[in-house]
Amino acid sequence: MDTERFMGIVNGLAASYRGGFGVNPSAGGGLPDRASVAALCDLMLHVVFPGFFAHGSDQVIADATDPSLRRLIGDLEDDLHRLLLRAYHFQASCLTAEAGQRPAPMAAGEVLAQFLEALPEVRRLLESDVLAAFENDPAAPCHEEIIVSYPCIEAIAVQRLAHQLYQLQVPFLPRMMTEVAHSRTGIDIHPGAIIGDHFFIDHGTGVVIGETTTIGSHVVLYHGVTLGAFNPTVRNDAGILDRGQDNKRHPDLEDHVTVYPGATILGGDTRIGHHSVIGGNAWVTRSVAPWSTVTMADPELRIRQKQQQPSTSFEI
Amino acid sequence: MDTERFMGIVNGLAASYRGGFGVNPSAGGGLPDRASVAALCDLMLHVVFPGFFAHGSDQVIADATDPSLRRLIGDLEDDLHRLLLRAYHFQASCLTAEAGQRPAPMAAGEVLAQFLEALPEVRRLLESDVLAAFENDPAAPCHEEIIVSYPCIEAIAVQRLAHQLYQLQVPFLPRMMTEVAHSRTGIDIHPGAIIGDHFFIDHGTGVVIGETTTIGSHVVLYHGVTLGAFNPTVRNDAGILDRGQDNKRHPDLEDHVTVYPGATILGGDTRIGHHSVIGGNAWVTRSVAPWSTVTMADPELRIRQKQQQPSTSFEI
Amino acid sequence: MDTERFMGIVNGLAASYRGGFGVNPSAGGGLPDRASVAALCDLMLHVVFPGFFAHGSDQVIADATDPSLRRLIGDLEDDLHRLLLRAYHFQASCLTAEAGQRPAPMAAGEVLAQFLEALPEVRRLLESDVLAAFENDPAAPCHEEIIVSYPCIEAIAVQRLAHQLYQLQVPFLPRMMTEVAHSRTGIDIHPGAIIGDHFFIDHGTGVVIGETTTIGSHVVLYHGVTLGAFNPTVRNDAGILDRGQDNKRHPDLEDHVTVYPGATILGGDTRIGHHSVIGGNAWVTRSVAPWSTVTMADPELRIRQKQQQPSTSFEI
Amino acid sequence: MDTERFMGIVNGLAASYRGGFGVNPSAGGGLPDRASVAALCDLMLHVVFPGFFAHGSDQVIADATDPSLRRLIGDLEDDLHRLLLRAYHFQASCLTAEAGQRPAPMAAGEVLAQFLEALPEVRRLLESDVLAAFENDPAAPCHEEIIVSYPCIEAIAVQRLAHQLYQLQVPFLPRMMTEVAHSRTGIDIHPGAIIGDHFFIDHGTGVVIGETTTIGSHVVLYHGVTLGAFNPTVRNDAGILDRGQDNKRHPDLEDHVTVYPGATILGGDTRIGHHSVIGGNAWVTRSVAPWSTVTMADPELRIRQKQQQPSTSFEI
Amino acid sequence: MDTERFMGIVNGLAASYRGGFGVNPSAGGGLPDRASVAALCDLMLHVVFPGFFAHGSDQVIADATDPSLRRLIGDLEDDLHRLLLRAYHFQASCLTAEAGQRPAPMAAGEVLAQFLEALPEVRRLLESDVLAAFENDPAAPCHEEIIVSYPCIEAIAVQRLAHQLYQLQVPFLPRMMTEVAHSRTGIDIHPGAIIGDHFFIDHGTGVVIGETTTIGSHVVLYHGVTLGAFNPTVRNDAGILDRGQDNKRHPDLEDHVTVYPGATILGGDTRIGHHSVIGGNAWVTRSVAPWSTVTMADPELRIRQKQQQPSTSFEI
Amino acid sequence: MDTERFMGIVNGLAASYRGGFGVNPSAGGGLPDRASVAALCDLMLHVVFPGFFAHGSDQVIADATDPSLRRLIGDLEDDLHRLLLRAYHFQASCLTAEAGQRPAPMAAGEVLAQFLEALPEVRRLLESDVLAAFENDPAAPCHEEIIVSYPCIEAIAVQRLAHQLYQLQVPFLPRMMTEVAHSRTGIDIHPGAIIGDHFFIDHGTGVVIGETTTIGSHVVLYHGVTLGAFNPTVRNDAGILDRGQDNKRHPDLEDHVTVYPGATILGGDTRIGHHSVIGGNAWVTRSVAPWSTVTMADPELRIRQKQQQPSTSFEI
Repeated sequence: MDTERFMGIVNGLAASYRGGFGVNPSAGGGLPDRASVAALCDLMLHVVFPGFFAHGSDQVIADATDPSLRRLIGDLEDDLHRLLLRAYHFQASCLTAEAGQRPAPMAAGEVLAQFLEALPEVRRLLESDVLAAFENDPAAPCHEEIIVSYPCIEAIAVQRLAHQLYQLQVPFLPRMMTEVAHSRTGIDIHPGAIIGDHFFIDHGTGVVIGETTTIGSHVVLYHGVTLGAFNPTVRNDAGILDRGQDNKRHPDLEDHVTVYPGATILGGDTRIGHHSVIGGNAWVTRSVAPWSTVTMADPELRIRQKQQQPSTSFEI
Repeated sequence: MDTERFMGIVNGLAASYRGGFGVNPSAGGGLPDRASVAALCDLMLHVVFPGFFAHGSDQVIADATDPSLRRLIGDLEDDLHRLLLRAYHFQASCLTAEAGQRPAPMAAGEVLAQFLEALPEVRRLLESDVLAAFENDPAAPCHEEIIVSYPCIEAIAVQRLAHQLYQLQVPFLPRMMTEVAHSRTGIDIHPGAIIGDHFFIDHGTGVVIGETTTIGSHVVLYHGVTLGAFNPTVRNDAGILDRGQDNKRHPDLEDHVTVYPGATILGGDTRIGHHSVIGGNAWVTRSVAPWSTVTMADPELRIRQKQQQPSTSFEI
Repeated sequence: MDTERFMGIVNGLAASYRGGFGVNPSAGGGLPDRASVAALCDLMLHVVFPGFFAHGSDQVIADATDPSLRRLIGDLEDDLHRLLLRAYHFQASCLTAEAGQRPAPMAAGEVLAQFLEALPEVRRLLESDVLAAFENDPAAPCHEEIIVSYPCIEAIAVQRLAHQLYQLQVPFLPRMMTEVAHSRTGIDIHPGAIIGDHFFIDHGTGVVIGETTTIGSHVVLYHGVTLGAFNPTVRNDAGILDRGQDNKRHPDLEDHVTVYPGATILGGDTRIGHHSVIGGNAWVTRSVAPWSTVTMADPELRIRQKQQQPSTSFEI
Repeated sequence: MDTERFMGIVNGLAASYRGGFGVNPSAGGGLPDRASVAALCDLMLHVVFPGFFAHGSDQVIADATDPSLRRLIGDLEDDLHRLLLRAYHFQASCLTAEAGQRPAPMAAGEVLAQFLEALPEVRRLLESDVLAAFENDPAAPCHEEIIVSYPCIEAIAVQRLAHQLYQLQVPFLPRMMTEVAHSRTGIDIHPGAIIGDHFFIDHGTGVVIGETTTIGSHVVLYHGVTLGAFNPTVRNDAGILDRGQDNKRHPDLEDHVTVYPGATILGGDTRIGHHSVIGGNAWVTRSVAPWSTVTMADPELRIRQKQQQPSTSFEI
Repeated sequence: MDTERFMGIVNGLAASYRGGFGVNPSAGGGLPDRASVAALCDLMLHVVFPGFFAHGSDQVIADATDPSLRRLIGDLEDDLHRLLLRAYHFQASCLTAEAGQRPAPMAAGEVLAQFLEALPEVRRLLESDVLAAFENDPAAPCHEEIIVSYPCIEAIAVQRLAHQLYQLQVPFLPRMMTEVAHSRTGIDIHPGAIIGDHFFIDHGTGVVIGETTTIGSHVVLYHGVTLGAFNPTVRNDAGILDRGQDNKRHPDLEDHVTVYPGATILGGDTRIGHHSVIGGNAWVTRSVAPWSTVTMADPELRIRQKQQQPSTSFEI
Repeated sequence: MDTERFMGIVNGLAASYRGGFGVNPSAGGGLPDRASVAALCDLMLHVVFPGFFAHGSDQVIADATDPSLRRLIGDLEDDLHRLLLRAYHFQASCLTAEAGQRPAPMAAGEVLAQFLEALPEVRRLLESDVLAAFENDPAAPCHEEIIVSYPCIEAIAVQRLAHQLYQLQVPFLPRMMTEVAHSRTGIDIHPGAIIGDHFFIDHGTGVVIGETTTIGSHVVLYHGVTLGAFNPTVRNDAGILDRGQDNKRHPDLEDHVTVYPGATILGGDTRIGHHSVIGGNAWVTRSVAPWSTVTMADPELRIRQKQQQPSTSFEI
């Protein structure tokens, strides 16, 4: 094209930038970009499963004097620190009217310390998740293959880590982290969800778990399961959409619940009682008692009370 | 293995290459490979959302004399130009019998110019998409978090950009671009689809939108929604599969339609009237009037006419 | 944070590592990490579709004396060799009690040779898959666009390659390879599945195909299709979960079967007869005869016997 | 080492940083680092010798509408702009007492424009340098081999480019650029030196050319030649070292001077007359008339007047 | 700067490109660029000293069936092949008038084969060079430290490899290779030089060895030594500069010659007899007999005949 | 080439590897390769001059609680640790007969700690070197330009750091480090040399400083200066070459000595008295008294006693 046309394009885009959104503020190192957050997730995964997510990190880390360990934690601390500062700075620049509603952010150093101190507990939970996968999937020959190849492990690990930052009211990063895992695994778990131990998701593509969901221990989900909001855009009396954690709109699953592929469970008042089984493609918008089995094909929710001992041969 | 066996393998694979498909022609810089197209998508995303998809690009671009802006557009122009030339060259080499049916490609320079000139309008549409996400998702605390972390923004942005090239009859690149986004987000929108403003897809994994779909303004889709072809392999009187844009085989959604998770809408004559709601897991192969609500559990499509004011408490 | 707190974190994590899982053994080059396996998949894809998955590889490979060909196979041989050694070494370190149950691994050189010798046959199958995609998708303008942009090609190619290693009883790598493809395409095919020629998956997100599935020739699947286990955690008389290939728990699809989006077919005794059509969202747990059509909306599986000629206008 | 010792090291280095030099100011993007300046040199070399210093840049740039050309200049403009801003910012932070003595820097945009506008003239000079190399080195088979393999071309090109910035009073960058070339070629030319056309340096290792040197046209130097200051640390009446361009302390070489390997010419009043030859290892601290030949072996500078036609058989 | 000025710059540079040198022809993959040749040198060094120049290549290569070895040679063959094709193509485009004087290039495949077949002999020579370094440098504690840290090893190895290509009349690449080594080591050896076994250069910076030099066995050079042309620009009767290998203009050093730092030996008829010692900074333009010692401080070349047994206490 | 010839090449090179040197042992992570040592030097330079040698490290490091500082030292500790282990392992494998003569290596942890504890003192010395450069070079406008652009700073810093490891008897790494700096700067300082504060080398190309040299405070060297061994290959009574630190064979320079370009000072008994000046190209093999001036042109070393106050107008 001739040069006048090129310059017209430059001018047009410049005008488009002036009026619109999407221009990253220059100071503060910029907003937390996606690639940096993806690298942070990889580093965190390497810390909680040393050697499984990074080639060449084949040193046994045996005690607290090992240089590799100091380096690993130092790397994580510094990377997270820089992203925290960028996130806080960006939040200050983009939240204007709403800024008053938010509490002042915790000092970055305190967030760092509390996050790092939680890592052993996160590792304990993840160990229980690996055991749950081994118990529930006959295709798994050993624990290690689960860590290296099951997408649910990456998705759950990233959510458990992001959930720590979510609880510390860190802006942007928790959701960006779970979206990294969503992109890689097809499993979309909001960082706000509260998830018990021994959690297993098989295959996982299409799973959606909303912000105010709670999940007990020993819960198993299959691919395509939605734990969602009944009608997300209900507004309050002032015509305003209630946002965030305080608007309880996703269900609760008690311990030992199993949800088969494609099932959908909606609503903040919906509670799935312990030891219940939700059949494939079922659509559940009401609570069910413990030990229930819900099958798909009943518009009125064909619910059958199970025996006090879980049946292994129910019809789905 | 011993060297004779190795040489036998070399000979066998060479023979396999000689007879078969899949050998990239040597001239013209090769076909447009996936990695280059993924990099092109990243660059385009950086141009339409400066600073959100690339670290270190934290300069405010304030006016048309900023070197960063000239560089940005120059980079995009040159990368796209090279890929256009490779795509045209590859098309010429691989379309033999069918070549006559295709119009001669537009000059690359004209394609470049028209594409770049459309960017401000694409940005205007994308701004409306961000607003739609904010209106429809209570989990979104601010506009910026939507841009950095919602997969629908990447999927819709790439489709809107690829659609420009599709309209300019560029071969290969549009579809390759939307597959990059599909791979990253699980959202599969064909570049041929025509999509209005204020479009929102929540979660998104498993969404499929076919080539001849049209979508109005203020449409909301949830994950797992299919806008597909009723029976794609019907052949014409000559026993030939009608291909491409002229074979209208996907549905039309009018303005303000909402489609809940897992619903499937099929067929080129299927039209969803404005302000309708399609319930989760519904299977729709017939048109529905405006203001309708369609629920899943009725084999005969239980359709209920809504009031002229959209209800906020319908049963799904 | 102050330095005492940092050192407390180091000590805490060191203690967590000592007791727990997830520490990569130091010798043997470490376990096969994800990034190396992803690179191996890319290299294999480049070998079976030269030029389509890698930029700059635009040389025509015309005969067995071409240096590019020797290099290509040499690269693949060496990369796979190193990963084989790491996989065998890791298997020896992580399988303790179970080690006795596994046969001794084949010599790495023999695995390499048999794998490389199978490549022409894999290419022959993949060529049939490309033809199947062209026959079944009106949106495909030519064979080459299918290779560069259809996710099913990547998913099927990686599974066919991983299946070769699975048959050679290579640990870890086959499953890691298919998970690379799962992450990129949303299509989850276990490396153990046995798949005939002319296989096509449209869109693909959410497809799950289990370990003991068998699929005939000319089978077409749409996105969201599950070929799964009826109740995977049934235990044998000893209370032990039967694992692996010998526990037949996934269905068989005969030739010319088509399965529409969202359908679920479960169970090791479930056999879908040839020329059958499974409708969208159908839930099938029993065998169906050849030439059957199964629709979604019938809880008792509304099955209709088709004519001996496949109907083109059945109701889905 | 134990953790107390590690923390002592951290504390010790922190204390060392507090008191000392060498801490990069946080604002303004940091000082112009070496790697960025080396990349800038590579880009400039690519602009003045397109295709010779970068692989893959094999497009013929034929006219001003070529996207490659706009991109190339846009890249250079933007990279140089960012480094200019960092250099000015760093200068302001590190020059305190001396700041008053320096003129205010020219606006970055004006520096950019004047630099870019000088590129055709720089290219004209470099073309004459290539011709001079071809004339003077029997080992050179063609012009192109000189560009791709003679270190003097890189050293002279970088100096000619840096000299433009030096004249525009840009801080830091000119000297950093010539040190990049010094590191790669062993040829150390200060950016302040004024050098005529048709300049050739053979081999080049160990050549030193000082800040206030002037060199005419058609000058040839061999490796190990020093054009230096007689006694650089002479102080003025106030006991202060005169710094920079105004302290003329390096020699002048008139047109058609040849200086053989290892010769040293010192002093700001030393002028080598045109068509003179300085023999290998000679040590010259006094001016010599035109058409002179100076040989090494005479402590009193054995100078012999040459004939008006340059001799081809003088003794060195 | 404003956009008009920018476009003026683009136009000016475009005009500069049209008339001048330095535009890389578009076809044939471009000329052999520096970065590719540097990578080729690294690969060759890795082949002749496996493990010493590349991290991670720690496999013992024990026999001819090792995949690492096939890969290594395959990589080298293919990289060299591509560069050969680019070099021949570029030669054809840049040598116009002179093209007739050059012999037709040998087929690339034959060059490749002869080069690779010479590698064991090159390795034998390099082993003798390592031994010579160990014998001559008291600072060397073992053979291995010499390979990993002595610049002469890199410089000599690259020259010996480039010399193979020089003998096969490959254009561009040999000289580009030795300039890579020159840049890294400060040692400038022309690929045409013929060098015997057990060659050692200590320190090396500033060493220059010309195209038609011959060097016997067991020769030792120190840094700053020049083996050059007496007066390189003498023209023949037709006023033409004799170029290349046929114009013998550099000296011959017989076996067991030692040349101390800074010495200069010039001229194609200058022959240094075996077991001679050239003192530091000496300037030699005449032949000397075997067993001679030449000291610097004599304008008439103070030559002293040594005893038939080499003295260890001569004055330098 | 045909495949038989290729396989012959493979066999030939395999045979060459079997008999010869240059095969890197497989265990222990391989020997310390050049690229890793170069990266180690860059990291060390970043630690002693934070921000000057690495882009993007623009954080002010203000106190010991800064995560950046912990990370920086953690990175250095871990990288050095891994290289130490590889160096010790390689030493054990390559030193056989001589192994008994070497003391057992210090524990790696102790070496690490002592090295890191020495960093503040190294920084103190380097600060004095920057000041010396500023005092001696009129071309330097400020301290910061010296750090970013003077090659002597890199060469001296790397030597001072390598000298710490040399004193701790670390094998391989010290010499490899100084060769990295030699390659980049042309300045070759053996890690064994003992160098006082306020050391300045101008230009530097061709400087050689031997293993057993000692240099006082406030010494200035110009390019091309050699501080070497008189006759390095003298053997002891047993006919063995004395190696290493105990064979004192390089000169001593007392405080405030200046050595002009190209001068050569040789011999372990040669001592240059304080406040002496060695003229350009001088050749010195005998000690000179304090306050001496030595000029080049005298074979018998024309030495002139200076006044007790250093003259500023001596003849060189």
